[in-house]
Amino acid sequence: MNVLNSVGFFFPSSFPLLATTEAENGPVILSGVLLSLVVIYLASKLGSELAKRLDFPPVLGELVAGVIVGVSALHLIIFPEGGLTAADSLLMTVLQNLNALTPEAVTSIFASQSEVISVLAELGVIILLFEIGLESDLRQLKAVGIQAVVVACVGVAVPFAAGTVGLMTIFHVAAIPAIFAGAALTATSIGITSKVLSELGQLKSKEGQIIVGAAVIDDVLGIIVLAVVASLAKTGEIDVLNVVYLIVGATAFLIGAILLGGFFNKAFVAVVEKLETRGNIIIPAFIFAFVMAFIGNAIHLEAILGAFAAGLVLDETDAREQLDELIKPVADILVPIFFVTVGARADLTVLNPTVPDNRAGLLIAIFLIVVAIAGKLVTGWTVFGIPAINRAAIGVGMIPRGEVGLVFAGIGSASGVLSKPLEVSIIIMVILTTFLAPPFLRIAFGNSEPIAELETTSPEA
Amino acid sequence: MNVLNSVGFFFPSSFPLLATTEAENGPVILSGVLLSLVVIYLASKLGSELAKRLDFPPVLGELVAGVIVGVSALHLIIFPEGGLTAADSLLMTVLQNLNALTPEAVTSIFASQSEVISVLAELGVIILLFEIGLESDLRQLKAVGIQAVVVACVGVAVPFAAGTVGLMTIFHVAAIPAIFAGAALTATSIGITSKVLSELGQLKSKEGQIIVGAAVIDDVLGIIVLAVVASLAKTGEIDVLNVVYLIVGATAFLIGAILLGGFFNKAFVAVVEKLETRGNIIIPAFIFAFVMAFIGNAIHLEAILGAFAAGLVLDETDAREQLDELIKPVADILVPIFFVTVGARADLTVLNPTVPDNRAGLLIAIFLIVVAIAGKLVTGWTVFGIPAINRAAIGVGMIPRGEVGLVFAGIGSASGVLSKPLEVSIIIMVILTTFLAPPFLRIAFGNSEPIAELETTSPEA
Repeated sequence: MNVLNSVGFFFPSSFPLLATTEAENGPVILSGVLLSLVVIYLASKLGSELAKRLDFPPVLGELVAGVIVGVSALHLIIFPEGGLTAADSLLMTVLQNLNALTPEAVTSIFASQSEVISVLAELGVIILLFEIGLESDLRQLKAVGIQAVVVACVGVAVPFAAGTVGLMTIFHVAAIPAIFAGAALTATSIGITSKVLSELGQLKSKEGQIIVGAAVIDDVLGIIVLAVVASLAKTGEIDVLNVVYLIVGATAFLIGAILLGGFFNKAFVAVVEKLETRGNIIIPAFIFAFVMAFIGNAIHLEAILGAFAAGLVLDETDAREQLDELIKPVADILVPIFFVTVGARADLTVLNPTVPDNRAGLLIAIFLIVVAIAGKLVTGWTVFGIPAINRAAIGVGMIPRGEVGLVFAGIGSASGVLSKPLEVSIIIMVILTTFLAPPFLRIAFGNSEPIAELETTSPEA
Repeated sequence: MNVLNSVGFFFPSSFPLLATTEAENGPVILSGVLLSLVVIYLASKLGSELAKRLDFPPVLGELVAGVIVGVSALHLIIFPEGGLTAADSLLMTVLQNLNALTPEAVTSIFASQSEVISVLAELGVIILLFEIGLESDLRQLKAVGIQAVVVACVGVAVPFAAGTVGLMTIFHVAAIPAIFAGAALTATSIGITSKVLSELGQLKSKEGQIIVGAAVIDDVLGIIVLAVVASLAKTGEIDVLNVVYLIVGATAFLIGAILLGGFFNKAFVAVVEKLETRGNIIIPAFIFAFVMAFIGNAIHLEAILGAFAAGLVLDETDAREQLDELIKPVADILVPIFFVTVGARADLTVLNPTVPDNRAGLLIAIFLIVVAIAGKLVTGWTVFGIPAINRAAIGVGMIPRGEVGLVFAGIGSASGVLSKPLEVSIIIMVILTTFLAPPFLRIAFGNSEPIAELETTSPEA
């Protein structure tokens, strides 16, 4: 029986000491994550429903709700950055009292829980871009014609150049944050514009077609620009060779993915047809999206560029149509985490005008908003060869920034390249351009005749 | 222009030093999570598809695939526990070479990435229990009658008592791990049994009805037992008052949730009907499940008890039926993370019989398997008042442990209460009972006449 008695070593009397900190804190970290998710989901639903009732895009409601539960107001969802500690977090105070935790344990749990929520938000934006990629139809791009290409390119180049140069010369902002903020001015939100156009019955008008076509191109250009500037932000220096590598790399990555699209597509359908267990469609799709996102990250571009490319190349097939349905609930639970945390991280108090030190930041915010609106408005006057076109309507249609603008703010904030005032300025720019576009668009189209069209669906519907 | 010039303070020249470690490591942590998820998804699909072809339950394939990618073999998915470091992880070595990381950065990234995957696995088991709760029909319980109740109670009590007492007296295992391992022997997997019964055309036979009814009761009893023993494991001591509190608390929690079910249900449907934006069904459902899981955790029981109760009380309604469909893709991407990581954490080498020190652990494993089989087999002979019933078939039908047994192993491992040999013994017990039940069941039913029935769906289908 010697062998049997010797098993005592499995359970030494010092057993509780062997338990790792992770194991001890594990249930509390889970509690913290669950509580954070409940707050995020409640905020996102209250915000999006209220926005919907007020005829604003739901995503804007989620963002504003995030601001309210975040560092600017309720301190429910905060992150250990900018000097904030667990003691500043209302949720952590609740957990500390419930579990009688030591201050060290609280600090460690706060860090772990924040890390988990951050990664969930990043997975959310990866799924968002994958979904945007799935919804972008490349064949539509071929049809939009040269007018949309010109509008898109001018609409990217003018705000980018004016924003970057203005920040550097007027406000003496360093080159990298100035470039990042300038880049955040580029992307047009197709979801918001196409929804308003649809309501006005103008989606199939000449103006509507140019706006939507240009917005699709803008999305692609914006994501390439983001990948390039985010990579610059990581190295912290601007080396001409590196910039060329990044632009060529990002473009080649997207074009390469599209050229190999037929192969990826066939392989995806073949795999899906062979699988017989649960998750036969969504797991291969996620493997593909995550591999592409990983490659995007590994070649020092951005994970979202890979996810967007993965969505772009999955062509219309039976499996694709089922995937569209399956990915929705996953996006519904992950994407709000991204939008709410972008709002929650933004400390609006840095622009409080009653504090004299903040006024410089306020001027930057005003400057960015003016450039954001004017830089897109001019695009209407670049349309050529079409007499009697409503140039103001086209320019106004390009104004709303929406999701992609928030992706810039979120990634800029996570990478640490944007100062708080710049980050908040970008978020306010996104909110204002998105709030203003619908009423402006209604004014610009005035009494134009509505044009019959099929019902369209937007990501916010 | 003084104000404008003063904004230079936003971007001090020391700016790169201000970037937090989190911000610097952020993209690499995301890369690590993406790579881990790709490995987990590939393993889960390869494993489940292979198991399905060999006519075994897919969940078993996911578990075995987890063992292969984990600490026992490929070292792709490992966790910083039991002395393992980033240097042991193949994935971390890849990331280190890709990003030229310092050893300190790698250690920190490894810890963060492991934490994120652990929490994702815990969210997976919460969703799994929520889904099991949704699929459990309480009205069915009323119909199964006294026979199923007796079979269930004996099938919980005998393996629990025999396992715990045996481990303590024969093997001198400490009380808490012995109780935990005994508890892991209690739960019957309804999914596996009902699928085999369905294939044999015996789901609607008297024996089939008793087995399925008892398995449903077993699930509920097993989850109460788990909540109680996991809570004991946290405090590390057995206080009679505390045990009474826990048993009463867990039972009251479940019964309370069921009694309030009508109210929860009406509130859920009312909220869902009012919401107009995306996620109108799944977000309220997740808020409810996560709040219940948080309460389960906060009253020192288990998060999964809350999630199970949340699923149990959402009655058949239009919103519920849509929820069933919406939750599937979310479960499909989160639940495999749980099963694969349970396998990955289990170090099978601790039972390698060529190492003399391991033989004591091997004897424990053999003992647990014998108790697991014999303890359920006897239940067939507790059925009374029905002459000519196939007692062996009922006993054999209760043998497979499946998912809930793995939930015990996973939670035991995460809480640090189970020694490695005990944890691995439980996992091998689950694997063997689940492998053996289908052929045994076919033998036990022999040439019994198949009975017509409707097609049933199981969670593994």
